[in-house]
Amino acid sequence: MEKITVSLGERSYPITIAAGLFNDPASFWPLKAGDNVMLVTNQTLAPLYLEKLSTLLTAAGVKVDQVILPDGEQYKTLAVMDQVFTALLQKPHGRDTTLIALGGGVIGDLTGFAAASYQRGVRFIQVPTTLLSQVDSSVGGKTAVNHPLGKNMIGAFYQPASVVIDTDCLHSLPPRELASGLAEVIKYGIILDGEFFTWLERNLDLLLTLDTQAMAYCIRRCCELKAEVVAADERENGQRALLNLGHTYGHAIEAHMGYGNWLHGEAIAAGMVMAARTAEGLGQFKTDDVDRVIALLQRAGLPVHGPEEMKAEDYLPHMMRDKKVLAGELRLVLPLSIGRSEVRSGVTHDRVLAAINDCQKS
Amino acid sequence: MEKITVSLGERSYPITIAAGLFNDPASFWPLKAGDNVMLVTNQTLAPLYLEKLSTLLTAAGVKVDQVILPDGEQYKTLAVMDQVFTALLQKPHGRDTTLIALGGGVIGDLTGFAAASYQRGVRFIQVPTTLLSQVDSSVGGKTAVNHPLGKNMIGAFYQPASVVIDTDCLHSLPPRELASGLAEVIKYGIILDGEFFTWLERNLDLLLTLDTQAMAYCIRRCCELKAEVVAADERENGQRALLNLGHTYGHAIEAHMGYGNWLHGEAIAAGMVMAARTAEGLGQFKTDDVDRVIALLQRAGLPVHGPEEMKAEDYLPHMMRDKKVLAGELRLVLPLSIGRSEVRSGVTHDRVLAAINDCQKS
Repeated sequence: MEKITVSLGERSYPITIAAGLFNDPASFWPLKAGDNVMLVTNQTLAPLYLEKLSTLLTAAGVKVDQVILPDGEQYKTLAVMDQVFTALLQKPHGRDTTLIALGGGVIGDLTGFAAASYQRGVRFIQVPTTLLSQVDSSVGGKTAVNHPLGKNMIGAFYQPASVVIDTDCLHSLPPRELASGLAEVIKYGIILDGEFFTWLERNLDLLLTLDTQAMAYCIRRCCELKAEVVAADERENGQRALLNLGHTYGHAIEAHMGYGNWLHGEAIAAGMVMAARTAEGLGQFKTDDVDRVIALLQRAGLPVHGPEEMKAEDYLPHMMRDKKVLAGELRLVLPLSIGRSEVRSGVTHDRVLAAINDCQKS
Repeated sequence: MEKITVSLGERSYPITIAAGLFNDPASFWPLKAGDNVMLVTNQTLAPLYLEKLSTLLTAAGVKVDQVILPDGEQYKTLAVMDQVFTALLQKPHGRDTTLIALGGGVIGDLTGFAAASYQRGVRFIQVPTTLLSQVDSSVGGKTAVNHPLGKNMIGAFYQPASVVIDTDCLHSLPPRELASGLAEVIKYGIILDGEFFTWLERNLDLLLTLDTQAMAYCIRRCCELKAEVVAADERENGQRALLNLGHTYGHAIEAHMGYGNWLHGEAIAAGMVMAARTAEGLGQFKTDDVDRVIALLQRAGLPVHGPEEMKAEDYLPHMMRDKKVLAGELRLVLPLSIGRSEVRSGVTHDRVLAAINDCQKS
């Protein structure tokens, strides 16, 4: 069992990573007998895990209610979040309830924001079931729902009481979703850890076959890297923005194509190539390193071109809604080398458009 | 000009109280030239103040956009809050924007929650225009919207950057709204300050005629009392719950009668009498003091009986959804004497029903 602590003073919390965690109620610390729980999951995961978890916790003396939401990024909305509030109020659950988010990033982000907002804040436990959410969205307390005019525009910084990562969940994950998670994994290597990037180049095939040991190491390393960044910068004033490599471009793809048509990791993969090309154009990132990034993403089965339907000009209006925009100016996360990156402002729109054009399928 | 500081460490903020604040852009600290503002108000207040404030701030170099919401408690919803997000995203406003809440409690609570949630938190300034919001909801950082199954069930603890109280606003306030504010004013006397209660008994007529000096003193004293409580207990774990005197009963009235039919202060006035009767029944509050409470509320033009349409039994299901309920047990704020109160659990439902019955119009 791998265990990490995210250090945030009185909001510190543990992340537990292992196979078989769903077989032991102790995994779900700090739940104890007598507690009330609202288990939030989606229609795809409910038949796989809901009965098992519900039975496990009930046997441990926890009172379990549940709410099952439709599956998909398009349901990460205020209106769907309201269904969670309705379920909580119908029982009713009090301020001493605990929300469990059982699912990927959509369930985690939405349930986290629901927990932050229900009665102005109740406890919640993240149980991420996708690789993407295991290495990314379950760590760091960013919760949110989407708005038709922008992704993750409504939310809160709100930390879980604990994160429970059962790697067995990955066996039920579709290959596209696995690849989408690998995009975020590769991102950590590019922005923060050149050695880890090299490890990924050597071990990607093991990850693609869900080798237990390799996968556990990979998830732990990503969580560690993210936990370090978050601990240093909980509210994303500085270094934490680095985690957004590829996201400014990628969010534009997701928004333009309609949420859910391109998976988050797919959009971020193409976005990271665009960021790499932007950095290359500025003379701060070597062409050889661009090629290493592209090669690794391609081996993971990820797109390295933007969508054919989308012109370079289509990106900018979406990019200008990015949360990093300050005083109307774009700020981009750009790599300096594999393992080192920076937030940079003052990049001209022409430079950004040229890099996006470089990433069009020819 | 009266000035108070709410002491909450790095989240401390000033409250400024005076007539004529809307004539001086310096009132709206910390706004400065070059800032972006989204002014949020309602259809009733917009014709009275929007052009004046917008012109004032624009002349001071602030870029002002505005969103006008429908007026009424029934619009304090997630769906209406979404209109604020849409307005912000259409421009678009970035993370460096400031929301100004110009209105009563509904606008303040909704705009505060919107500010807490937009891009996970932007700055906001409270400009309360009703007596109720001036003495209550603008101080303390409780923001929320309602759910059909419960009032203020969805929200955040989020502090404003400053609170600007222009007492001139009270001249446009309907008499029922003024009385509703006086209910909260009287509440402070009962729970925390017997001397202030006596001052109110002597000066109520001046307040009813909007005497500038008496009103400024009254608002300052209420804000001071609330600021002290909030500073000691920002997240409502202990003493802050005292501010809920009458609210557990009153929220039941509001929910049962449909939000907006009984004004908040009217429901809280009847609720305070019910709490006083409950405490009297427990032998911890003198009958003479119950009579003083009733007399002062009546002089303010407030109801001291529950709605005729509502039976005692109708209250309990609503009361059990109160945020103070812990482990399924009701916890009530009850007076001990005029100026002293406590949070008490273990009061039987029969005792509560008897007190409510005592407050039925015979």
